[in-house]
Amino acid sequence: MQGSQPQRTTGHVDFVGAGPGDPELLTLKALAAFGRADVVLHDRLISPEVLSLAGQSADLVDVGKKGFGPSWKQQDIDALLVKYAQDGARVVRLKSGDATVFGRLDEEIDALDAAGISWAIIPGITAASAAVAAIGQSLTRRGRNASVRLLTGHDMKGFADHDWTALARPGAVAAIYMGKKSARFIQGRLLMHGADGATPVTLVENASRPDQRVVATTLDSLSDTLATAGMDGPALTFYGLAPRDAARAATELKEELA
Amino acid sequence: MQGSQPQRTTGHVDFVGAGPGDPELLTLKALAAFGRADVVLHDRLISPEVLSLAGQSADLVDVGKKGFGPSWKQQDIDALLVKYAQDGARVVRLKSGDATVFGRLDEEIDALDAAGISWAIIPGITAASAAVAAIGQSLTRRGRNASVRLLTGHDMKGFADHDWTALARPGAVAAIYMGKKSARFIQGRLLMHGADGATPVTLVENASRPDQRVVATTLDSLSDTLATAGMDGPALTFYGLAPRDAARAATELKEELA
Repeated sequence: MQGSQPQRTTGHVDFVGAGPGDPELLTLKALAAFGRADVVLHDRLISPEVLSLAGQSADLVDVGKKGFGPSWKQQDIDALLVKYAQDGARVVRLKSGDATVFGRLDEEIDALDAAGISWAIIPGITAASAAVAAIGQSLTRRGRNASVRLLTGHDMKGFADHDWTALARPGAVAAIYMGKKSARFIQGRLLMHGADGATPVTLVENASRPDQRVVATTLDSLSDTLATAGMDGPALTFYGLAPRDAARAATELKEELA
Repeated sequence: MQGSQPQRTTGHVDFVGAGPGDPELLTLKALAAFGRADVVLHDRLISPEVLSLAGQSADLVDVGKKGFGPSWKQQDIDALLVKYAQDGARVVRLKSGDATVFGRLDEEIDALDAAGISWAIIPGITAASAAVAAIGQSLTRRGRNASVRLLTGHDMKGFADHDWTALARPGAVAAIYMGKKSARFIQGRLLMHGADGATPVTLVENASRPDQRVVATTLDSLSDTLATAGMDGPALTFYGLAPRDAARAATELKEELA
């Protein structure tokens, strides 16, 4: 968990997983890192409640977007991390969920290694864990799936390609990150490779947050559902999982009461 | 996250992810559940430090093994959960890592649903997150892998079958749970399906615990490495990931100092 430590006179960077948004899903280790930090560089999607805890004794720097301007470039974030650490600061680099899952962690670690700056990774609750808990299901289940895939809807080249044939088999389960824009592409690829159109697909928006929302659909109806659901927040898409009845009932009750 | 709530006079069961062992990797929500609990039913692999926190105000019941006798049967655990809850207890069902990842969660939820008992799932840090942090890597990396598989070495029928062809492709990354006994099987299947024997394989034993140990090898050497490594603790096997140099250096330094 600990990287190189060539000079103890320079600072240090902790890559901290902020979890999915509920501050109660922070680990004790993340809170301890907040307490030690001089500065916290954070992404755009960190919840206000988590930022409030992170900023109690440290400066907050939003590297998710620059005021009302364009997004930060990765190399500028790398350079800022190095600069703070070289100035002797204890830095927390706060990333949504778990930093090791679609967190673009490597570019930043490479920059720190090149500059000889020590670092550590503090794991967090990834979106798939929080979202699957919300629908009362397991990512894996004996007799159904002996593996689960965490996959991204798009990569550097556009929509990401995957093992569609394997995913199209009965019982396959995948947790799709950043899957809203690529939903039609994924739907088409899976159906083309023989997936059953009745396969359950469940979207969990703002998992673990007060405005969490669960939308259950099927592979056949995925695009149409998304077109009318009006989802603005970050969403996790489960392929091959429907909400458990009891969890569905609780969700519906909550919506009735709201 | 909340299951059915037909009767508030009965108890309630929180399925809590204990994380990989380091008590600092517990979430605030897990600690809150410990504080409310009357009784904690826990698995065998929960670390003593986590059990100490869980048992501060609740009774601990080890359902991982019965004294020096045989393992508990799943249906006996199900029945005990139901009984405690029907007697009005607040129950924590404490499972290693994240309860939704190879946690045999569904059988227990089904039993509670059948008895009309309310339940909730509190996510935890799964072993793959802690283990990959220990080797300074990401489970996913832009330009390398747009998905990661969490898979189990064995299922109800013995060694688990997987999409070996897909896994054998360059850049594939998998986190293998319970992979020690099935290592030779997995090695054989992957090589048979064309995987490069030089593909890095890394075992992380007791991830996040004081006795954490990292063993780096290759697919070709996996069986031989395991035969001589003498690993007794729970281990996570990474296929397609080697420890980052800086993390490797820190591990070696720690071993020299020990």
